[in-house]
Amino acid sequence: MSALRPGAQSFIPPTQPNGSSTPPVNGAAQTDPPQNRAAELHGLLQEFTTLILPYVAAGDLDAALKETGSGHGLSFSVEEGYAPSELGFMWAGTALPDDYVDSASCAGRTPLLSPPAANPKTLAPALDLSFPTKPGGKHALLAAARGILTHSTNTWSPGFMDKLYGATNAVGVVSDLLLSVLNTNAHVYHVSPALTLLESATTRALAGLFGLTGPHAGGVSQPGGSAANQLSLLAARNRAFPEAKEEGLAGCGRLVVFTSAHGHYSLEKAARMFGIGARGVRAVPVDEGGRMIPAELGRLVGEARMAGETPFYVNATAGTTVLGSYDPLEEIAGVCEREGLWLHVDGSWGGPVVFSEELRRERLRGVERADSVAVTPHKMLGVPVTCSFLLVRDLRVLHAAMTLPAGYLFHDEPSDGAFSVTDLADLTPQCGRRADALKLYLGWTYYGRSGYAAQLEHAFGTAQYLFDILAAHPDVVLVSQAPLPCLQVCFYYAPGRALGTPEENSRITVQTAKGLVERGWMVDYAPGENGRFFRVVVNRDTGRGVVEGLVKAIAETGAEVVGRK
Amino acid sequence: MSALRPGAQSFIPPTQPNGSSTPPVNGAAQTDPPQNRAAELHGLLQEFTTLILPYVAAGDLDAALKETGSGHGLSFSVEEGYAPSELGFMWAGTALPDDYVDSASCAGRTPLLSPPAANPKTLAPALDLSFPTKPGGKHALLAAARGILTHSTNTWSPGFMDKLYGATNAVGVVSDLLLSVLNTNAHVYHVSPALTLLESATTRALAGLFGLTGPHAGGVSQPGGSAANQLSLLAARNRAFPEAKEEGLAGCGRLVVFTSAHGHYSLEKAARMFGIGARGVRAVPVDEGGRMIPAELGRLVGEARMAGETPFYVNATAGTTVLGSYDPLEEIAGVCEREGLWLHVDGSWGGPVVFSEELRRERLRGVERADSVAVTPHKMLGVPVTCSFLLVRDLRVLHAAMTLPAGYLFHDEPSDGAFSVTDLADLTPQCGRRADALKLYLGWTYYGRSGYAAQLEHAFGTAQYLFDILAAHPDVVLVSQAPLPCLQVCFYYAPGRALGTPEENSRITVQTAKGLVERGWMVDYAPGENGRFFRVVVNRDTGRGVVEGLVKAIAETGAEVVGRK
Repeated sequence: MSALRPGAQSFIPPTQPNGSSTPPVNGAAQTDPPQNRAAELHGLLQEFTTLILPYVAAGDLDAALKETGSGHGLSFSVEEGYAPSELGFMWAGTALPDDYVDSASCAGRTPLLSPPAANPKTLAPALDLSFPTKPGGKHALLAAARGILTHSTNTWSPGFMDKLYGATNAVGVVSDLLLSVLNTNAHVYHVSPALTLLESATTRALAGLFGLTGPHAGGVSQPGGSAANQLSLLAARNRAFPEAKEEGLAGCGRLVVFTSAHGHYSLEKAARMFGIGARGVRAVPVDEGGRMIPAELGRLVGEARMAGETPFYVNATAGTTVLGSYDPLEEIAGVCEREGLWLHVDGSWGGPVVFSEELRRERLRGVERADSVAVTPHKMLGVPVTCSFLLVRDLRVLHAAMTLPAGYLFHDEPSDGAFSVTDLADLTPQCGRRADALKLYLGWTYYGRSGYAAQLEHAFGTAQYLFDILAAHPDVVLVSQAPLPCLQVCFYYAPGRALGTPEENSRITVQTAKGLVERGWMVDYAPGENGRFFRVVVNRDTGRGVVEGLVKAIAETGAEVVGRK
Repeated sequence: MSALRPGAQSFIPPTQPNGSSTPPVNGAAQTDPPQNRAAELHGLLQEFTTLILPYVAAGDLDAALKETGSGHGLSFSVEEGYAPSELGFMWAGTALPDDYVDSASCAGRTPLLSPPAANPKTLAPALDLSFPTKPGGKHALLAAARGILTHSTNTWSPGFMDKLYGATNAVGVVSDLLLSVLNTNAHVYHVSPALTLLESATTRALAGLFGLTGPHAGGVSQPGGSAANQLSLLAARNRAFPEAKEEGLAGCGRLVVFTSAHGHYSLEKAARMFGIGARGVRAVPVDEGGRMIPAELGRLVGEARMAGETPFYVNATAGTTVLGSYDPLEEIAGVCEREGLWLHVDGSWGGPVVFSEELRRERLRGVERADSVAVTPHKMLGVPVTCSFLLVRDLRVLHAAMTLPAGYLFHDEPSDGAFSVTDLADLTPQCGRRADALKLYLGWTYYGRSGYAAQLEHAFGTAQYLFDILAAHPDVVLVSQAPLPCLQVCFYYAPGRALGTPEENSRITVQTAKGLVERGWMVDYAPGENGRFFRVVVNRDTGRGVVEGLVKAIAETGAEVVGRK
């Protein structure tokens, strides 16, 4: 088509920050000034690229320093001319400066994990909170972005082992970029045809991996794992009590749902939201590995029925938040089928093992019997926050539970007898919907199922390696049990393997965790019967040198904390 | 700091798509292979930049062609060498080719608003839905991205006047990019210090604009306007019936909420979700301008009380979905105060007029008396989807309604008597939270309050201009009333201003809308008592030439539709 304009220039738009001063286009009479949003975008993209690449590179480089377990961790500065040039040696393959981890050389730099003003009161003055009347333009924008980068926890650092998510990856970032440029709403098909179709195809493919392969299997994206769990409870409630949509719950008596004692708090939150109440949530006891005990579930269901209550829903967990336990789905499914209860599997964290034949075998046995499965690729798979799905055995049930086709938004009537929902918002609590499914679709395209499997198998191997080191360590008491179910390793730092009182153990854990941040490690902790214990989360990018360094750092920091008691 | 390594290169990382083959860093003993995620990101960012800039530029150029009202609209091709070079003349300031809008020159191109395979059945084969086992790498990734761009509705086209949102802008895109690179969760402070603080500051600043200026005023971001409205209903329900959190709604009797007959459907959806039921939602009659009638609200509240029901919440709307009407907030607030009802203002669409003294004066009078306000900057302000907020008079009430501090996530106890929530997830139904507030913060920094005001005033002026043209048009019957309240203009195409039966009017509207898509315009329609009518939405980027072209196109297309009856 270039014949249209033989003398066309190559695509090098000038940078015009305000996008308003382009010369008028001759040859076309027009009343509107020409727009040059593309050139403005080009200019800002270039500026932001130079800000964010060093930020990511700092995380890359940090990995090479982590095995020492000491020093302040790599630091990062957004001051012009510093970070890019210094980080250049990473790509050049040249030596690290000998003094790189020396604390003196860190003056004026920002540690990756402990921003200089980490307390809300000290951070506020470090950011520009002026909300100006007049335009700040590009200069103010870049200054604000620098401040944010300086005062953020850099999740690209391999020392970030605090949460069930970590950094994203290159394909994740460009997926977000593409979504932003497409800027549309995945609520009705005609404004998001490709994105809607990809969401339907992605949820169908994902449901298929979990063995939900029936003609009406599928799902929808949800803004987070809590939202996905909540939607499952709504769908189950409205299937069991269709009149609730019209009449509310005033006449429904005591509805009861079951989740393990180690289940995610979003279930109780959902019960509070949806009119069931916290008293309608029964915590099923777990075994020593943190797994729901199916016989206990059966017992509690029976007790509820005896008390005149109405059980309708069970939440089983594939990968609990603290220990990473996988509930015995096969046995739980048996109870649910016998009792006529909706089985939801909260695989928000541990569900992605479905990509690996090896990892899924024992962990997900029976998942294909679930009515719904939540899975959150923004955790284990590194898709950018947020990307979560609720997958269901039967989309018709989800649709019946949620549909409310406002005439001004939803225009399409079913064209034939076949069930299909192309306007996806009618399946969800949301109206405005960012098409997050695109991010998993593009990641899956880039890495393939085998690539995701390899990443997960690598991570599980690293977690087991950390577990093994800690199991052999004389000053560690493990909380996690072998075989390690997932990517969390839980333990106490306890010299001579002698635990103190719960208060003492908690103090050591919390103070050691604080000390670790200063050294470039961020790990979380959770409450237990012996007080708070460490919960370290390994991810796809975590190397063995990293976990070796972590153990050194914990031993040194822990000894200091115990010593200054 | 560059003294550390005097010979440092400037920042030109090699493009290494797999990020795995960097030479090892000498001088540091390490067990982990080096990571080069920054270089991989750099490579993909470059590739995606060349894909997305022409997509945006096509929208820019389209604006220059719109005033003709004819032709197929600008088309777009992702084929290499085409779009970039042809779009180059836009920046070069040279002439548009005379034959640019000739249909012959559009062969093989993709219209911006009517993708070649717009039907789900024909679109599916045009996309790669293989979900491969093996990695597709960069090649497959780029092919997928091209397919998505080709088959998406290009919201950068000024012909996209179908929804209450349109394209974003340059600052919006780089904000999304920054968020993606930061990839963290705004649920607890220590993993998102800057983003959390900015969200709190942004909601406080926004609440302040609405006159919610008390010591505990503030808010939280929510994933969409529906979610913000839903959260307001939850907060109100749990304030009125604190026992609902523990006991559920079984004992609460008939709870009743009020919204105008023209209110957003998310309110009824929320009532269905939260155990109130659709029968607990009362539609308050509206006046001829689509505004809630306060006396009718008072009457319905009284009737509910007489019937033994329990009113507790009123949803007033600042900018309804179809007509853009602003409910009389001052009078409604009077009813709410008298009756002890929570007043929520759904300003999801029309709330941003708060940025302009001129626009807000009549429209938002009394909003400062609200208990909560929803506002969605991803609509009128062009912040990327999604960016919504629930603002509240008293964060303590929101916190009391929502808090459920799981011990493994929330560690901080209040350090003093002052109320403050730094772990924002404890205010919301969500746990995983993308820090969408950043996008408004950066937009506000870039444009300033005055810049937003100018954009909105320009848009309101353009909408009025469209209204005036249509008011003078011999073949148009207006549904919108003067003075135009907002950015929507609603009308029928009716030759000689003679409406037919509702069925005839609906047919003309729907078929004309379909024909318009082929010509490069996408407008929506809504049901009315005379059948479906057009609802055209003007945005910040809409020029006067654009609306002139639209009117020409409607007249021509409408005449064709009427003629082939």
